[in-house]
Amino acid sequence: MLYLVHMTVSIPDNLPTAEADRIKAEEKAYSQNLQKSGKWPHLWRVVGEYANYSVFDVESNDELHDLLSKLPLFKFMKISVTPLAKHPSSIR
Amino acid sequence: MLYLVHMTVSIPDNLPTAEADRIKAEEKAYSQNLQKSGKWPHLWRVVGEYANYSVFDVESNDELHDLLSKLPLFKFMKISVTPLAKHPSSIR
Amino acid sequence: MLYLVHMTVSIPDNLPTAEADRIKAEEKAYSQNLQKSGKWPHLWRVVGEYANYSVFDVESNDELHDLLSKLPLFKFMKISVTPLAKHPSSIR
Amino acid sequence: MLYLVHMTVSIPDNLPTAEADRIKAEEKAYSQNLQKSGKWPHLWRVVGEYANYSVFDVESNDELHDLLSKLPLFKFMKISVTPLAKHPSSIR
Amino acid sequence: MLYLVHMTVSIPDNLPTAEADRIKAEEKAYSQNLQKSGKWPHLWRVVGEYANYSVFDVESNDELHDLLSKLPLFKFMKISVTPLAKHPSSIR
Amino acid sequence: MLYLVHMTVSIPDNLPTAEADRIKAEEKAYSQNLQKSGKWPHLWRVVGEYANYSVFDVESNDELHDLLSKLPLFKFMKISVTPLAKHPSSIR
Amino acid sequence: MLYLVHMTVSIPDNLPTAEADRIKAEEKAYSQNLQKSGKWPHLWRVVGEYANYSVFDVESNDELHDLLSKLPLFKFMKISVTPLAKHPSSIR
Amino acid sequence: MLYLVHMTVSIPDNLPTAEADRIKAEEKAYSQNLQKSGKWPHLWRVVGEYANYSVFDVESNDELHDLLSKLPLFKFMKISVTPLAKHPSSIR
Amino acid sequence: MLYLVHMTVSIPDNLPTAEADRIKAEEKAYSQNLQKSGKWPHLWRVVGEYANYSVFDVESNDELHDLLSKLPLFKFMKISVTPLAKHPSSIR
Amino acid sequence: MLYLVHMTVSIPDNLPTAEADRIKAEEKAYSQNLQKSGKWPHLWRVVGEYANYSVFDVESNDELHDLLSKLPLFKFMKISVTPLAKHPSSIR
Repeated sequence: MLYLVHMTVSIPDNLPTAEADRIKAEEKAYSQNLQKSGKWPHLWRVVGEYANYSVFDVESNDELHDLLSKLPLFKFMKISVTPLAKHPSSIR
Repeated sequence: MLYLVHMTVSIPDNLPTAEADRIKAEEKAYSQNLQKSGKWPHLWRVVGEYANYSVFDVESNDELHDLLSKLPLFKFMKISVTPLAKHPSSIR
Repeated sequence: MLYLVHMTVSIPDNLPTAEADRIKAEEKAYSQNLQKSGKWPHLWRVVGEYANYSVFDVESNDELHDLLSKLPLFKFMKISVTPLAKHPSSIR
Repeated sequence: MLYLVHMTVSIPDNLPTAEADRIKAEEKAYSQNLQKSGKWPHLWRVVGEYANYSVFDVESNDELHDLLSKLPLFKFMKISVTPLAKHPSSIR
Repeated sequence: MLYLVHMTVSIPDNLPTAEADRIKAEEKAYSQNLQKSGKWPHLWRVVGEYANYSVFDVESNDELHDLLSKLPLFKFMKISVTPLAKHPSSIR
Repeated sequence: MLYLVHMTVSIPDNLPTAEADRIKAEEKAYSQNLQKSGKWPHLWRVVGEYANYSVFDVESNDELHDLLSKLPLFKFMKISVTPLAKHPSSIR
Repeated sequence: MLYLVHMTVSIPDNLPTAEADRIKAEEKAYSQNLQKSGKWPHLWRVVGEYANYSVFDVESNDELHDLLSKLPLFKFMKISVTPLAKHPSSIR
Repeated sequence: MLYLVHMTVSIPDNLPTAEADRIKAEEKAYSQNLQKSGKWPHLWRVVGEYANYSVFDVESNDELHDLLSKLPLFKFMKISVTPLAKHPSSIR
Repeated sequence: MLYLVHMTVSIPDNLPTAEADRIKAEEKAYSQNLQKSGKWPHLWRVVGEYANYSVFDVESNDELHDLLSKLPLFKFMKISVTPLAKHPSSIR
Repeated sequence: MLYLVHMTVSIPDNLPTAEADRIKAEEKAYSQNLQKSGKWPHLWRVVGEYANYSVFDVESNDELHDLLSKLPLFKFMKISVTPLAKHPSSIR
C-alpha cells in the first residue's frame, strides 16, 4: 500500500554541529535500511530545498506512522502524508 | 531527469458525456504510451480525489512541458510541477 | 484501518431539482449501506455547512478510493482524506 | 453534543527532557480519565505528525473549553474546534 | 450557548431578479423572527461586503445547524461557525 | 460605531511566570474598565484557543487603535479588526 | 476618518457589452462625484490588474458601507476594507 | 526599470474556438512587437501550466499598466507584478 | 511614480529596550525627513496592528528599494510593495 | 535549461555580525563566479525585501540543486524553484 510523503527538515540554529551530524548519520542509516527492506521504495530531493518527497510501501496506516515517528530527524521535520491508490490508467 | 507532477481534473458540467468519454479514452491511451516508453514511470491516484501524482523521466523542462501540454485533458487540468534531484541517502 | 474524510458538497445551480433529489436519495441509501456494513462507522454534519466529517474503516487505500469514488454525489464533492493511526494514549 | 478537535503539539527545543516527559505523562493520564468518563470518545493519531484528531462529547461550549484549556500540553498546542451535528443520513 | 457565525452571500447572476427579491424578503422575515425570539441576538453587516457577522444563542450544535440550514439564502451562502465560551475577564 | 476584533495571545516561553501573571492581571483590569465604560461591550473566548472575539463601540478608528495599542498584552497579541455597519435586517 | 479599500472587479463573460459599458460609465460618474466631495480622496489602479486601492474619508463605518454598496459595479466586486489611524510619525 | 510579471491564462469554455484562435494570434503579434521593441525582454512558459513569467523593461508603473492592460488576452488573465531593483551582487 | 507599501514590524523580545527605543527614534526621524521631502507622502497606522500602509512617490524601483532598505527598522520588518498607476476615473 | 528561483534570506538575530558579514561576502563571491560562468544569468532584488528572483541556466535538476545547496547563505534561505520552458511566442 503506497503513500506519498513530503518531509521538510528544519534543524535549530543552536543545535551543536556534532550532534546534528550524528543525527543526520543515524537518519541516513535508518533510511537506507528501510529502502533496502522495500518499505521506502523512493526517496527524492526537492530541488533547492532541505526537503524530500518519498514513497512508502507498507501494510497499514499504523505501520507508516511507526516508521515515520522513528526517523532520527522526526522532531525537526514537518511531514505530510497523501494516501495513494492504483490509477485505472496505470500499466503497472 | 525526474519531476513530480500533480494533476487535478475538473471536467465542466456542460461537457456532453460522449465527448467527455472520448477525451478520457484518448487520455488513457496517451498516458499508457508514455508509460510504456519509460517517460512516465509512475502514475498514482490520490485517494478520494479526481487527481493524480505522477513521476516523469525526461530530458529537459521543454520535453516535460511538451508532454504535459499534449495531454488530452490538459485544458481541464490544474497541474503543478516539482523538479526532483538525487537524494544523498538514496540507495538507487 | 481508519481514515478521517472531509466532504464538501456543491451542487450546480442548473441541475434540475428532480435529478438532484434522485442523486441525494441514492447517496443516502449508499451511505447507509456502508454504515451498516461497518465500513463507514461515523458520519457527522459540519454545523452550518453542506459538508460532513466521516470516519471510514477499510482494508486499504484502494478500498477507500473505490468506496469514495462510487459516492453518487462524488462529482459534486471536494474530498480530503487524512490517514489515522492508533494514538498511544487511546484506551480503545 | 459532539465536536471534532484537531490538536498539533510543538514542544520547545529548550524544554528539559525530564520536564517534557513529566508533562506528557500528565497529559496521558488526563486524557485517559476523560476517555473513561465518556467525554473524549475518540482519539486518533494523524499519520506522520505530532498531532491528533479527537471527538469530544460534552454539554456545552464552556465545558469543552474548560476541558481543553486544562490539557497539560495546552500551552504547547495549536487547537481548532469544529462543532458537529447529527447528519440526516446517519444511522446512529 | 453562543456561536459567532460568518455568512457570505453570493447570488448567481442568472437568478431572476424577482426570485432573488422574494428569497431576500423571506430571509429578512426569517432572520427577524429569530432575532425577536432571542436566538439570533446580534446581526452586523461587514463593511463593504455582502456578508455579515452574527451571534447565535442556542441550546446545541444541532439546533444551530437546523436554524442555519433553513435560512432562505442558505444555498447561496458560505458559512463558518466559531463556538464561543465565557471569557474569564468578561464582566457579563 | 462597532468593530469586531479578533485577538490571539502568544506569550513567549521565556517570560518569567511572575511577570506574565502581573501583565495578565493588568490586562484583566484594563479590559474590565473598558467593559464597564461601554466601549468594549462584548468579550468572548474562542473555544480551545488562547484567543478572543470582541466587539468595541468607539467614536473613531483612532480611538479604537488607541484602546487596542494600550492593552497590556498588546505586544504579545496578533489582532485583526473588522469594521461593522448596521445590517438592514437587524431589529436593533 | 480614513479607510484603505481594495476593490477587484470581475465582470461576467455573459454580460452584454452595452450593459457593461453603461454600468462602467455610471461607476465613473459616481466615483468622480465622491472624489469631488472629498469622501474618496485617493483612487489608484493596481498595475496589471482590474483592481484599485482607494482611500475613503468618511464619518462612520455606516457611511462607508453605504457609499461602497451603492457602487454601480458593487455586485461584480470583491472588496476588503482596512481601517486606518493616525500614525505617530506622520507629519500631517 | 524591470518588473517580473506572472500571467495565468484561463479561456472560458464557451468562447468559440475561432474567436479564441483570433485573440491568441493577436496576443502573439502584440507580444512579439513588444519583445522586438525591447520592452518585454524575457518571456518564459511555466512548465505544465498555461502561464508565463515575463520580465518587462519600461519607464514607469503607468507604462507597464498600459502595456499589460492592452494584452489581447488581458480579460482572461490573472496577472501579478513584482517590481525589481538592481541586486548588489549582480555583475550586470 | 507611486507605490503602496505595507510594513509590519516585529521587534524581537530579547532586544534591549534602550536599543529598541533608539532605533525607533531613528526610524521616526528618517521617516519624517522623507515625508518632508515629498517622497513619502502618506503614512497611516493599521488599526490594532504594529503595521502601516504607506504611499511612496519616487523616480524608480531602485530608488524605492534604496529608501526602504535604509529604514532603521528594516531588519525587523516584513514589507510588501504594490506598484500603482493612474486610475482612468481619478480626477487628480 | 532555465529555472526561475526565488530566494528569501532570514539571518538569525543572534548570529554575530562579523560572521554574518563573512558569509555574505562568501555569498557574493560565489554568486558572481556563477554569474560569470553563465549558469546564473539573472539576479534581481525584490523591491523592499531581503529576497531575490534569479534565473539559472543549467544542465539538469541535479546540477541546479548542487549549485543552490552550496550557497553560503543556503541554511538561512527559503528557496522555491519554477522550471521554465520555451514560450511559443518568444522571439528568442
